[in-house]
Amino acid sequence: MTRNIDLAVIPGDGIGPEVVEQAVRVVEAVLADTDTGVSLTEYELGAHHWLATGETLSDATLESLRGHEAILFGAVGAAPGDTRVPSGLIERELLLKLRFSLDHCVNLRPSRLYPGTGSPLRNPGQIDFVVVREGTEGPYVGNGGVIRQGTEFEIATEVSLNTAHGVRRVVRDAFERAAARPRHKLTLVHKHNVLVHAGHLWRRTVEEIAPDFPEVAVDYLHVDAATIFLVTDPARFDVIVTDNLFGDILTDLAGAVTGGIGLAASGNINLDGTAPSMFEPVHGSAPDIAGQGIADPTAAILSAALMLHHLGLDDAAVRIEQAVANDVEQRSGTKPRGTAAVGDSIVAALRGVTV
Amino acid sequence: MTRNIDLAVIPGDGIGPEVVEQAVRVVEAVLADTDTGVSLTEYELGAHHWLATGETLSDATLESLRGHEAILFGAVGAAPGDTRVPSGLIERELLLKLRFSLDHCVNLRPSRLYPGTGSPLRNPGQIDFVVVREGTEGPYVGNGGVIRQGTEFEIATEVSLNTAHGVRRVVRDAFERAAARPRHKLTLVHKHNVLVHAGHLWRRTVEEIAPDFPEVAVDYLHVDAATIFLVTDPARFDVIVTDNLFGDILTDLAGAVTGGIGLAASGNINLDGTAPSMFEPVHGSAPDIAGQGIADPTAAILSAALMLHHLGLDDAAVRIEQAVANDVEQRSGTKPRGTAAVGDSIVAALRGVTV
Ligand SMILES: CC(C)[C@H](C(=O)O)[C@@H](O)C(=O)O
Ligand SMILES: CC(C)[C@H](C(=O)O)[C@@H](O)C(=O)O
Repeated sequence: MTRNIDLAVIPGDGIGPEVVEQAVRVVEAVLADTDTGVSLTEYELGAHHWLATGETLSDATLESLRGHEAILFGAVGAAPGDTRVPSGLIERELLLKLRFSLDHCVNLRPSRLYPGTGSPLRNPGQIDFVVVREGTEGPYVGNGGVIRQGTEFEIATEVSLNTAHGVRRVVRDAFERAAARPRHKLTLVHKHNVLVHAGHLWRRTVEEIAPDFPEVAVDYLHVDAATIFLVTDPARFDVIVTDNLFGDILTDLAGAVTGGIGLAASGNINLDGTAPSMFEPVHGSAPDIAGQGIADPTAAILSAALMLHHLGLDDAAVRIEQAVANDVEQRSGTKPRGTAAVGDSIVAALRGVTV
Repeated sequence: MTRNIDLAVIPGDGIGPEVVEQAVRVVEAVLADTDTGVSLTEYELGAHHWLATGETLSDATLESLRGHEAILFGAVGAAPGDTRVPSGLIERELLLKLRFSLDHCVNLRPSRLYPGTGSPLRNPGQIDFVVVREGTEGPYVGNGGVIRQGTEFEIATEVSLNTAHGVRRVVRDAFERAAARPRHKLTLVHKHNVLVHAGHLWRRTVEEIAPDFPEVAVDYLHVDAATIFLVTDPARFDVIVTDNLFGDILTDLAGAVTGGIGLAASGNINLDGTAPSMFEPVHGSAPDIAGQGIADPTAAILSAALMLHHLGLDDAAVRIEQAVANDVEQRSGTKPRGTAAVGDSIVAALRGVTV
């Protein structure tokens, strides 16, 4: 054993624990018989934990999480009907708090249409792009407020904060990714004809960094137009760079056109290594199907592959991605399998066993 | 002649004048042989006008526009490559200024999949919904700013303003529309798990008004989830109510899934009659195809029909909508026709002539 990966695991709520369990099995399987070991520390966090203990994310837990090399995250959030949990509390005080505290400035969301996947589009074409979503700024900062609440004079504000520092590092990362991909294309998505202040900062930053990447072709789309292209010509995209809110919207839509967010993986990347990065499926905790063993763990498994890439274990990551691609192709047209069956199939493929 | 409609027409830039010309022909044709006349006053406005005169929208022009009963609007905006026109200037200083000055609080955007239209979706289902987009608030207010511009310490902000007054009138209007439609469904779209201040105002307002419309079934979707449903199950929607920015994004996407924004109409509605409402296709000025006579005028023609509904001329409006529906069905699978040919065909149908 020449290396040991020290992972934190946050299974969370709803289907989170079910899908994370399979992702962990897959990581262990792909690293078996290699010189890399993995140790896991599980953290009980989420709506159920808050209900039991009152903790969303304490300073002590956050400190402890910082000590790990990476975090594998399931999903959090109570059932929409559960009035004991204030709406959005767990999302903000746990998920967003992790992203902000651990400086997850790049929220990396690849979208790929695997052969065999049913896209809702008639002619999806070859979809293979990645969204570099800013993760620590924009309208997500929690800035804003309300006066005269509940009266006819109520005013509620939301402030989007955008900094040169924050935009620059994300744009540079997006250029680097575009330069490393075969098509060398970068699309900035914003709404700079209306959101002029933030829009101009994004635009100027792209213009400033572009000369460092002469091989990358850059274009721009307003966010409304980008959603049109995502359904009429998603194959046009290679790397998209965009702000936190637009990225949230575009990546759910991208997940849908590539066959459902049951397949969409993401990484919350700390670029300078000051804290662990965190890997999570784009889907939520899906309380409606939790506990039934029917949730698709593929997005969690692909998130684990993104994590292995991030940790420099590209061979292991690619092996998982290939096993998933084969599995997705094979399952095409067949009855949906349960959560464990999908995990079984990927693990068996990694072990070279036929199930 | 028992009534004369006094219309302002703003053809604008690019394909705007071409499509508006056909919309005007259609309005004249549908009102011929009725007891309603129409008089038109054309206003030269847009990027070309600004380049020639320096006017985006003067106080005098705005005052004059106020005197009309309604405004028919084409599209504005310079070619993206035209560096003489600052990006977004015409959109903000003309189009958005009109919406804000004339208190166009409801931006009404129906989405319907006409039989024969090619949707990019494999199984679009029966799409027939309307988006009630707030038109005078949200992140569109132009509030925000920048400090230390161009330095590594730059901060740019955008402030979304939301008022009880602004949200309430739009939500009530959406409930009224839902109550008047056969399915009685209203979906609030927001992102209240992240944008808590504005989100709670929207949510509370919907909850407050709901008891006045017991027949309307209400649900809620986060904007990211709403984009998923727009491609996986658009038929689930009946009336959507949402803020200015989310409405911008959702309606472009809705246009795309219903066969292209060449068909998407909209009305900027002044609810209390203190200023004229304005009707415009959702598409832009499309400088790349301007002057070639190939732009589809259908969205402009349907916007004129929305205008006639608004003016209480429902029979005329329905006749146009039916003629368009027939035309769209007939053109299915045939070669694209030119702008004038589409106008010819609708006008002939309204006159009961076969072309
Ligand atoms: C749960 C929510 C706060 C989150 C977000 O908006 O970022 C989710 O939608 C996502 O995309 O990861
Ligand atoms: C041109 C632009 C300002 C406008 C908007 O964002 O409202 C357009 O996209 C629309 O939807 O009418």
